[in-house]
Amino acid sequence: MSQSLDIAVIGATGTVGETLVQLLEEREFPVGNLYLLASGESAGASVPFKGRNLRVRDVADFDFAQVKLVFFAAGEAATRSFAASATGAGCSIIDLSGALDASEAPSLVPEANPQLLEGLVPPYSLSSPSASAVALACVLAPLKGLLKPQRLSVLANLAVSSRGREGVNELARQTAELLNARPLEPRFFDRQIAFNIFAQVAAPDAQGHIALERRLGAEIKQLLGEPGLRVAATCALAPVFFGDSLAVSLVAEQAVDLAAVRECLSRAPGVEFVEEEGDYPTAVGDAVGQDSVYVGRVRGGLDDPCELNLWIASDNARKGAALNAVQSAELLIKHYLSKILT
Amino acid sequence: MSQSLDIAVIGATGTVGETLVQLLEEREFPVGNLYLLASGESAGASVPFKGRNLRVRDVADFDFAQVKLVFFAAGEAATRSFAASATGAGCSIIDLSGALDASEAPSLVPEANPQLLEGLVPPYSLSSPSASAVALACVLAPLKGLLKPQRLSVLANLAVSSRGREGVNELARQTAELLNARPLEPRFFDRQIAFNIFAQVAAPDAQGHIALERRLGAEIKQLLGEPGLRVAATCALAPVFFGDSLAVSLVAEQAVDLAAVRECLSRAPGVEFVEEEGDYPTAVGDAVGQDSVYVGRVRGGLDDPCELNLWIASDNARKGAALNAVQSAELLIKHYLSKILT
Ligand SMILES: NC(=O)c1ccc[n+]([C@@H]2O[C@H](COP(=O)([O-])OP(=O)(O)OC[C@H]3O[C@@H](n4cnc5c(N)ncnc54)[C@H](OP(=O)(O)O)[C@@H]3O)[C@@H](O)[C@H]2O)c1
Ligand SMILES: NC(=O)c1ccc[n+]([C@@H]2O[C@H](COP(=O)([O-])OP(=O)(O)OC[C@H]3O[C@@H](n4cnc5c(N)ncnc54)[C@H](OP(=O)(O)O)[C@@H]3O)[C@@H](O)[C@H]2O)c1
Repeated sequence: MSQSLDIAVIGATGTVGETLVQLLEEREFPVGNLYLLASGESAGASVPFKGRNLRVRDVADFDFAQVKLVFFAAGEAATRSFAASATGAGCSIIDLSGALDASEAPSLVPEANPQLLEGLVPPYSLSSPSASAVALACVLAPLKGLLKPQRLSVLANLAVSSRGREGVNELARQTAELLNARPLEPRFFDRQIAFNIFAQVAAPDAQGHIALERRLGAEIKQLLGEPGLRVAATCALAPVFFGDSLAVSLVAEQAVDLAAVRECLSRAPGVEFVEEEGDYPTAVGDAVGQDSVYVGRVRGGLDDPCELNLWIASDNARKGAALNAVQSAELLIKHYLSKILT
Repeated sequence: MSQSLDIAVIGATGTVGETLVQLLEEREFPVGNLYLLASGESAGASVPFKGRNLRVRDVADFDFAQVKLVFFAAGEAATRSFAASATGAGCSIIDLSGALDASEAPSLVPEANPQLLEGLVPPYSLSSPSASAVALACVLAPLKGLLKPQRLSVLANLAVSSRGREGVNELARQTAELLNARPLEPRFFDRQIAFNIFAQVAAPDAQGHIALERRLGAEIKQLLGEPGLRVAATCALAPVFFGDSLAVSLVAEQAVDLAAVRECLSRAPGVEFVEEEGDYPTAVGDAVGQDSVYVGRVRGGLDDPCELNLWIASDNARKGAALNAVQSAELLIKHYLSKILT
């Protein structure tokens, strides 16, 4: 591509934003001017890009008319505050926060629902779904025709980095305190996360569901084009820095052909199938730092031939967020570069 | 009770065995002579009991005719080697290893299936089921009539202590190495468990299931008296020292009455229901060291009114193993003390 795009990344100092900026460089995304934005607090900091140090600016002072594409990686509040300004200035946007409704900004996982891009009209607004939905969609989209899934039960053991930099710092600090036999003082979390697992990643609503669980359910149905799928989701928080681990149990319409499932997963784009006997993927040993979703422990049911069980490990900040957003942008410009530039 | 029983504990130097000996003391179990047994390796060690230090002996040299009741807490191999000698000598046995078939030694969780004891004939052989099955049975048995469960999907995040003392030592050692920026050298496990989650606790069989997953499925059906229940089980290993965390999703015959479920759980014996809004139980903060199974995050389905979701936290070595075995023995002697003594 000889043409390039002027781009803004909001949340450039964060876990996802930093990775996103690295990926723009690594993947030789056609970046013209790059504007790195965050809150007033870290304005003035600098982030490396292509051998230079780019200055971080306060998003509140930014004129979106300067760019054509904006990545929102700064939480729901920032998306709510600035998405309208960006689209109003004619920018295409890719939101990672989940703040936008699917009708405004449908979820895209290029391996799962690239057809979403057919017939879109500018300015383009897309969501990069929750990290668990990205991982699930990469694995389940290629199996959909084979399985005709009826029910999907997911336990997502999320890494503390799903709660951003502060989650990472808190696990490190708590672990060090415990190992040094100092009294534990929870700060960012309200209790001990080191050597423990939380039943939820955030506060539940009146029905007991976490927003992220509802989001995951809605996103996976949209991504698979399966509005009738019955999803059970639990998002727990594990004492793991990076990398989500998902235990998945699925009920298919008919008896599952496990050989066909294995064959399909071994060919699936963006998926690394760990098939060697007795081996299995883990977040830290396999998925973290990688561009693929890892899947293993493929097995039928103990009691039900229509059941399929899987284990999925994925880098939440990279494959689950920054990389999916960049891949989505790549697909978007493949379809619509000339329209985005005008 | 004025009468007392001569007892042997095999595996008395282990994670479960040590707790079991403590519980015999704490609960004033009617112990006459107590024989603490282990492998030849730790013969000669001593374990405190009622203010004295009892010498550990080699089980291979033990004459089972000296006792009336034997706890097997030393792994499958020890049960296979010595269970027949014990029952041959007229002992009643409670096995914690899962080595015995349900037809020889059915599983007992006193809160769930006390009726098992009706009409048993001596010598009595019982199994104390896997820690996850104990926890599940305590929570699901009281709900059974209300729910008529059809499907049960369980992800058990097991503590490293489910792999005994060596699991505990390995997590401690690996964590310290990582925090001190030393190169990680896995020994007892084949890879990094610190800040990671394993998709399985042991090697799978040809169908991909772990023995513990099959055991859990079979035990929960026997304990609930629900042979037709369809169980999906994944036993993962988490970087937690003590305390199992179970995410449970259940499909009932009819729409679930959540108010009735809550009411039922708040009265269930052996169960602590965490019902305060937004709160939830965890292994380390709540369950470990306690005699109850903790349950919370009670909620319906996102898409299915027949679904019930729960989170369970339980002390694997105490409530899940040692305490359940002692409670089983208490129930056994309540029914059959005179027959056991003859
Ligand atoms: N972490 C993951 O695994 C993951 C996965 C999928 C999606 N996401 C989404 O990605 C987004 C970023 O998450 P993260 O994990 O990278 O969080 P993080 O490490 O806490 O970083 C947050 C970033 O957003 C900026 N920010 C926060 N509030 C802002 C505001 N009001 N205005 C402007 N900038 C603001 C922060 O800037 P300062 O330096 O100025 O504070 C920082 O750059 C979130 O929407 C999250 O839901 C995260
Ligand atoms: N840990 C749990 O959460 C849990 C839960 C439910 C059931 N269980 C079951 O409880 C049993 C003990 O587990 P654990 O976690 O306590 O293991 P552990 O900490 O490794 O202790 C094992 C104990 O068994 C003894 N032992 C091992 N092999 C033996 C043999 N061949 N003959 C005689 N003694 C032998 C050991 O004695 P030495 O000191 O001589 O090596 C030690 O006392 C196992 O069957 C396990 O499946 C454990």
